[in-house]
Amino acid sequence: MAKQEEEVILLNLWASMYGMRVRIALAEKGVSYEYREEDLRSKSQLLLDMNPVHTKVPVLIHNGKPICESNIIVEYIDEVWKDKAPLLPSDTYDKARARFWADFIDKKVFQIGRKLYTTIGEEHEAARKEFINSLKLIEGELGEKPYFGGESFGYVDVSLIPFHSWFHSYETYGKLNIQQDFPKLIAWGKRCFENKESVSNSLPDSLKVLAFVQFLRRRFGLDE
Amino acid sequence: MAKQEEEVILLNLWASMYGMRVRIALAEKGVSYEYREEDLRSKSQLLLDMNPVHTKVPVLIHNGKPICESNIIVEYIDEVWKDKAPLLPSDTYDKARARFWADFIDKKVFQIGRKLYTTIGEEHEAARKEFINSLKLIEGELGEKPYFGGESFGYVDVSLIPFHSWFHSYETYGKLNIQQDFPKLIAWGKRCFENKESVSNSLPDSLKVLAFVQFLRRRFGLDE
Repeated sequence: MAKQEEEVILLNLWASMYGMRVRIALAEKGVSYEYREEDLRSKSQLLLDMNPVHTKVPVLIHNGKPICESNIIVEYIDEVWKDKAPLLPSDTYDKARARFWADFIDKKVFQIGRKLYTTIGEEHEAARKEFINSLKLIEGELGEKPYFGGESFGYVDVSLIPFHSWFHSYETYGKLNIQQDFPKLIAWGKRCFENKESVSNSLPDSLKVLAFVQFLRRRFGLDE
Repeated sequence: MAKQEEEVILLNLWASMYGMRVRIALAEKGVSYEYREEDLRSKSQLLLDMNPVHTKVPVLIHNGKPICESNIIVEYIDEVWKDKAPLLPSDTYDKARARFWADFIDKKVFQIGRKLYTTIGEEHEAARKEFINSLKLIEGELGEKPYFGGESFGYVDVSLIPFHSWFHSYETYGKLNIQQDFPKLIAWGKRCFENKESVSNSLPDSLKVLAFVQFLRRRFGLDE
């Protein structure tokens, strides 16, 4: 099948950091696709059919075949459209290291970050401490480099940058001052936004995300 | 550096299913390595230096450089020693699918399985149900194939087979009858054991694992 005949569909929820990764990767590669917004309270039959195991977004459907789990989707995109904007490093060791940090971001930033607005009391305080510690480790890995992989925007950047649109929500509910305490991460986020249209065009406004989090908290019974 | 000069060290704990994956992958590739057993109550300085982020086993140290997280290590091994016993499929879509199931095994089998012997009451019952459901999904993915990837032993098999040495513990503390309820998984496990020395030589006896789990439960205060 010639490239122009390829059918690419993304099932997503606008606020999903996982979905943002996929949008950025597709934009980096210049892939045209059909975007379908899901209502998670009333999931489409297509989502249930394409991701019966987790029934979660994002799902990339490429010529009728589903790919699930955002980091796996990004690796898939990188390999299928390999002629443009390589995301994973070519060196085997550097690749393992990039996968390690993407995995860390999933487990220690996105998953722990969720607890900042979904838990209270001791659980919240423990999550807050773990989250801060994780950001320190991430900032240490970035060091003085412009991007995580070095001179160019790559896999770990794609994995973490959606977090930028959630800063405001994390600060609000995690009682954090990311702007003040993590200046290198802030500078990196600004760099991604200014230099990468794939990022600035794929991430929602952080105030819109905050309103979404406020809505979630009311649903969870944490706020009135 | 010529292959014969390569230094490969594995930091591990004998009962770790994650570590078994690495041992199997190294055995499949015929890689000689130095095995170092860790005492997790008194971790070696080398482990702390090589995996400062998680301070967990397994860690593969290849020519002085650490690789952490078992599925990432297995991918690394597959790529470095690529001339023998390929583990990941070569097709891009099949590769994404294999990664999806290895990720599922981590999240839904190994992590939920841990709750079968570390929790009680409602949490235990919820974990038990999720575990059974996960095994059904895994068995569905295996279907009538001899191995997860098809005709030959591969990445998903490496990812799941350590589970075999924990069957007895899961059955005991999860009140399950895996032997009876999951005949295809049992037949697959037997097939791996009989056909693959990399498996039979890398997995500990299931009664030894059960004794280890009993020890852990006493430490957690769940048994006297």
